[in-house]
Amino acid sequence: MTPALVVIDMLNTYDHEDAELLIPSASRALPAVRYLLEQARERDVPVVYANDNFGKWRSHHGELLEAALASPHADLVEPIRPGESAYFVVKARHSIFYETPLAYLLNALDVTGLVLCGQVTEQCVLYSALGAHIRHLPVTIARDVVAHIHQDLAEAALRMMEINMSARTVPAADAFR
Amino acid sequence: MTPALVVIDMLNTYDHEDAELLIPSASRALPAVRYLLEQARERDVPVVYANDNFGKWRSHHGELLEAALASPHADLVEPIRPGESAYFVVKARHSIFYETPLAYLLNALDVTGLVLCGQVTEQCVLYSALGAHIRHLPVTIARDVVAHIHQDLAEAALRMMEINMSARTVPAADAFR
Amino acid sequence: MTPALVVIDMLNTYDHEDAELLIPSASRALPAVRYLLEQARERDVPVVYANDNFGKWRSHHGELLEAALASPHADLVEPIRPGESAYFVVKARHSIFYETPLAYLLNALDVTGLVLCGQVTEQCVLYSALGAHIRHLPVTIARDVVAHIHQDLAEAALRMMEINMSARTVPAADAFR
Amino acid sequence: MTPALVVIDMLNTYDHEDAELLIPSASRALPAVRYLLEQARERDVPVVYANDNFGKWRSHHGELLEAALASPHADLVEPIRPGESAYFVVKARHSIFYETPLAYLLNALDVTGLVLCGQVTEQCVLYSALGAHIRHLPVTIARDVVAHIHQDLAEAALRMMEINMSARTVPAADAFR
Repeated sequence: MTPALVVIDMLNTYDHEDAELLIPSASRALPAVRYLLEQARERDVPVVYANDNFGKWRSHHGELLEAALASPHADLVEPIRPGESAYFVVKARHSIFYETPLAYLLNALDVTGLVLCGQVTEQCVLYSALGAHIRHLPVTIARDVVAHIHQDLAEAALRMMEINMSARTVPAADAFR
Repeated sequence: MTPALVVIDMLNTYDHEDAELLIPSASRALPAVRYLLEQARERDVPVVYANDNFGKWRSHHGELLEAALASPHADLVEPIRPGESAYFVVKARHSIFYETPLAYLLNALDVTGLVLCGQVTEQCVLYSALGAHIRHLPVTIARDVVAHIHQDLAEAALRMMEINMSARTVPAADAFR
Repeated sequence: MTPALVVIDMLNTYDHEDAELLIPSASRALPAVRYLLEQARERDVPVVYANDNFGKWRSHHGELLEAALASPHADLVEPIRPGESAYFVVKARHSIFYETPLAYLLNALDVTGLVLCGQVTEQCVLYSALGAHIRHLPVTIARDVVAHIHQDLAEAALRMMEINMSARTVPAADAFR
Repeated sequence: MTPALVVIDMLNTYDHEDAELLIPSASRALPAVRYLLEQARERDVPVVYANDNFGKWRSHHGELLEAALASPHADLVEPIRPGESAYFVVKARHSIFYETPLAYLLNALDVTGLVLCGQVTEQCVLYSALGAHIRHLPVTIARDVVAHIHQDLAEAALRMMEINMSARTVPAADAFR
């Protein structure tokens, strides 16, 4: 398997509904996201930031990043800001595949499996894992590297990915093994 | 709202893995599926059967129906067999929208919302509801008209649809209200 | 290259606008379509009939075939009717890929290139060739096995496929070479 | 009809194959592209730049624009550079709709028809017009505002759009009428 690491919706201003429920979970996941980014760099694994555009169609990723870095929660963004070699896919809806060029990009990079991290476990992560599964791309979820709003739904989502999508759910340290 | 009723994966031979877990739930849902089909007929609501092709790419819906009616579990299929005016969409994967003409068909019928029933609540129903939600089609789930394999995941799936997709989850009697 | 043969819109009742312009061309192409079908059978090349549904969403391919065989132009359909092992994709619009499961089917069959034949050269054949080209599937067009409405546009379409899509345009005898 | 103006592939460094054939045509079209952009601004018509990414997946539109403005052919780009309020869709292949969020964006803007201009008439313009047509979006082509590589194919492409896609092909002055 030639993996790519996809970082979902971590460039966030955290000013949306339910953000206060998400922040503690995102904060706990942050060091592990950073660890995965380092691991990807060491192993030459391509990194794709797949991020909501928050309805701002004129924005590109530079602007999204700036907005996130200018927010009161910049400390949740600064440690995991995209490196020079990161790819970027702007999405409008939950799945990283819906109306985005991601499938085309992964094909161009000869990627044959995804390691997913980011937020929200029971929403964009779950639906992005499904998007990979229906395209026959094996999925690894780094368990401690995803953030949730509702813990019970996040746990159900992880079981759905394991049982119904044959996803590997592993600690960050095993994500690229 | 101009609704369509979508019956998901109910034309089934029930010889797949986990079928024994699904059958009791499908059996309980059956009268309510039948009730919804009658309601749809009375109200001139278009009915779409969206059904897995079970990997048989040469099959059309007549053959899928025949196979299901010839199986030991024909009693779960006979009461809800498609009427003359039903539409049919063959799907290969979990979502009723993925690589199918459903979005095009709904547009051609001027449908602006979906009532979903069928199986499996925590898989195809959940992911089809998502497919509608990301296309901005409001979704109604008839709670007693969906069948599950894992009850706890089914309950989580219904909450995900309510909380994160703003789906209405109602008894069959209220589905078209 | 592992090819598939795609027969485009040849199951036709020829009662649409411009049919009288198409019939002579379809008639001339017929023996070569039949030849390609025989070649495909001998070489175990999968055959996919990709056919318009003519707005009849309740129809499956059996009905489409019956309607075509019951029309005054059944002689243009009978010699090339689908064999037992043929696949079938119903399409609603010009491209064989648009809102159809074709890409998924080709992937499931490990197909890595397409031989296209059928009608109309300057419409569905051209746009289906494009659909293959943007998905990086090499395309072969059997020159004498496509039928047109407007000869000048058909010739331009063949040049577009050659120059801009790197399609091979060859006699039927060389299609699988 | 609520139109949008789509400017196709005009942010170009003109260092690709066949560029020398394209430049004179692009040069001739330039004043009319500028005129359409002014008309769109006066009429509050949304403008979308749909542009190839030239395989540079890390690039956003600011970088694409900078590269084009730094090329020897900046004079073909400067007069039509995107304004503050322009939208931007990066595409990888010929059609402006393929694996891009354009359909979603147009829907979010309540756009019901497209005015297309840019390059190349017989390639991206033709295939983007098809993408609109199969989605039932009426298309207007500003005849003198498209640029070609091969004149005979461009003329055939315009006829294909008129005859087979019911596109309006009009002078720039009539594009928004």
